[in-house]
Amino acid sequence: MNPRLEIFSQGEEIVTGQVVDTNSAWLSQQAVEMGFTVTRHTAVGDKLEDLISVLQDVAKRTDCCICTGGLGPTTDDLTAEAVAKAFDLPLIFDEIAFGQIQQFFSNRNRIMPECNRKQALLPKGSLRLDNTAGTASGFALQVDRCWFCFVPGVPSEMKHLFSQHIQPLLLQKFILEPNQLITIRTIGIGESSLQDLLSNIDIPQCVQLGFRAELGEVQTKLLFPANYSQAELKNLIEQITAQIGDAVYAVNGLGREAGDVDLISVLDNLMTTNEYTIAIAETVNQGLLAAKLVGLPWLLSSHYEQSNMHLAQQLNINYLDKDPKISAETIAYAVQKKTDADMVLIQLTGNSKASNILHEKSCVIQNGLLTKKGFNHETISITGDIKRKQSQAALASLNFLRKKLQGQM
Amino acid sequence: MNPRLEIFSQGEEIVTGQVVDTNSAWLSQQAVEMGFTVTRHTAVGDKLEDLISVLQDVAKRTDCCICTGGLGPTTDDLTAEAVAKAFDLPLIFDEIAFGQIQQFFSNRNRIMPECNRKQALLPKGSLRLDNTAGTASGFALQVDRCWFCFVPGVPSEMKHLFSQHIQPLLLQKFILEPNQLITIRTIGIGESSLQDLLSNIDIPQCVQLGFRAELGEVQTKLLFPANYSQAELKNLIEQITAQIGDAVYAVNGLGREAGDVDLISVLDNLMTTNEYTIAIAETVNQGLLAAKLVGLPWLLSSHYEQSNMHLAQQLNINYLDKDPKISAETIAYAVQKKTDADMVLIQLTGNSKASNILHEKSCVIQNGLLTKKGFNHETISITGDIKRKQSQAALASLNFLRKKLQGQM
Repeated sequence: MNPRLEIFSQGEEIVTGQVVDTNSAWLSQQAVEMGFTVTRHTAVGDKLEDLISVLQDVAKRTDCCICTGGLGPTTDDLTAEAVAKAFDLPLIFDEIAFGQIQQFFSNRNRIMPECNRKQALLPKGSLRLDNTAGTASGFALQVDRCWFCFVPGVPSEMKHLFSQHIQPLLLQKFILEPNQLITIRTIGIGESSLQDLLSNIDIPQCVQLGFRAELGEVQTKLLFPANYSQAELKNLIEQITAQIGDAVYAVNGLGREAGDVDLISVLDNLMTTNEYTIAIAETVNQGLLAAKLVGLPWLLSSHYEQSNMHLAQQLNINYLDKDPKISAETIAYAVQKKTDADMVLIQLTGNSKASNILHEKSCVIQNGLLTKKGFNHETISITGDIKRKQSQAALASLNFLRKKLQGQM
Repeated sequence: MNPRLEIFSQGEEIVTGQVVDTNSAWLSQQAVEMGFTVTRHTAVGDKLEDLISVLQDVAKRTDCCICTGGLGPTTDDLTAEAVAKAFDLPLIFDEIAFGQIQQFFSNRNRIMPECNRKQALLPKGSLRLDNTAGTASGFALQVDRCWFCFVPGVPSEMKHLFSQHIQPLLLQKFILEPNQLITIRTIGIGESSLQDLLSNIDIPQCVQLGFRAELGEVQTKLLFPANYSQAELKNLIEQITAQIGDAVYAVNGLGREAGDVDLISVLDNLMTTNEYTIAIAETVNQGLLAAKLVGLPWLLSSHYEQSNMHLAQQLNINYLDKDPKISAETIAYAVQKKTDADMVLIQLTGNSKASNILHEKSCVIQNGLLTKKGFNHETISITGDIKRKQSQAALASLNFLRKKLQGQM
């Protein structure tokens, strides 16, 4: 059986709802992939008696607990004191931690406020976890069978301490069988359609299947136990991706070294490899399509107008055809001529006179791509609130480009 | 003393970190404003014994608990069963709840799967909370001194049930003294500068002061106790906003009916009242500035190019001046001529030859606004990772427009 792990967050800003606790989800994902079973999240505010009681309860019921927050210099940062009281351990002044705090301030040409001195007080017997990103050292200690790891609540410092110190420590203290998480990333297919497609495939009981819809894409997540055969794993993933078809734009987790690949990085890779440049013209997503490609040098320019008619006017086209596809093609050629880009990606309203169409309940839009091989075109419709439609439109255009590039236009 | 309230979330997807639990923060904010003291958040997965033990612990230590998740039709939805076991209450088949579930499916011309029947089983003695947005009814019941309210975990259904049923119920069951939350929204000033400015003002101990930085703005939050004089409250807020100056773009919470006002709604109000139209041309934020104004009809067009030189070329300007301000003005006039907008908002790189400047560590950018009264201009610099710089640049431009409009240019 996997060792059990809990997450414990401290902070008045969390329990009063001023801050959404994203640390717990991030830490839980890491712990699950390492081979822990995460059983509980707890958050309390800055009350010493609540902290003590949670710490004592946790020590009785779990094998490991990662605790965030409460390590700052102010009077409401009570974690070290709570640990000392909960487990009857004196606080010891740690010279090395204190030296690091002094160094932090002198590096910034600032005088250390007296209150920061308390951050060098660590419960007796604990391991110091050096924090190069801030003044709060983390620490770890074992109480009965439970390993506690304490880190600051600032997400960047928390993540830094986790990967630098906590992950290596836990790998040393626990016998873990890491699960392998494979994420199949798709655009242009809904969660229920994915479920239907996957019901045709025999997925073993020991593989945990989940879906996550976010930012216009759906991720199918498969968590494989440590002892699962790599050959069978690859075979199963191939079956699934073949079943889903070209809505799959990336599979994460097969090669552990590769890291997460998202739609933009897939596009960047395709465009850069082929040394293509592109220009955008559109009357739908109002700049969001270009904004998503921030900093990528192959995007030369982007132009938004409220309607196809206005766009044509700005391009000095006097006449738009009644056939939306012919109009779209005319516009794409005009943009190509003006910008001299290798490709032109356009997104236009279905009706050339329509203006600001994202206000309409259901919007018919055209995606088009002009390349040296000619003009490709599709018509789709989008619904939802205005921001959702904007985001869906931008993603649909990027996905249209991705499919054409992968199919070599 | 305020009654104490806890939040309890159920779901394997939360403890494994696949989903960030945003429900807890939202519910806590509501509860704090109603006059509860929120003391703890707990989340566990789909294990019956964990659910039972949390429910029993909560009943012993608090006055109210809002519980989310676990009300669905599948085998891992265990909340009603856990309540029944924890408090020794039989589950009763609720005919009305069942009728609503059947109605939900017949309205959608679908056959009710047999598993949905279990959603009509409610613990004896509980109040049914009708859910018009889904098949999962909520329910509420009192155990010892603690009122438990159970709602689905889907955020939209949770929020609907909270405002329709839970809020009225709690107002009836508890004597609450609602706090008043005032939020002062600022752009263009950092959290530490705000703290410095506010240290000059005498803020009473009973007023809880907090800061929240998000999406490029900083919110100064002041939570006033129920018995605080409205005249003194207004006076204090006036002192604070005067001290901060024109970085303040809105104050939320003074008139409870007004709802939250953000930067975009402030701008929309100013532009619509004056019947102005605007065109954007830029070489920095890559479409994000336009994207943030989604659906607002006063934005006529937006144009991005990789560099000022490219932008000038597309506008048929043959020559850019060495003085960045003169070049910016020339570009603004050319855009005005081309688009016929009342105003032109531009955001350009500080150096006309620089391309894709968001890759640079520190970027010097120019904001400009051309109106019928002439050309306004400022130079600022931005830092951070590329997405942060993009977002900061877009906000800085919107804020420049806001200040000019409020100062009547």
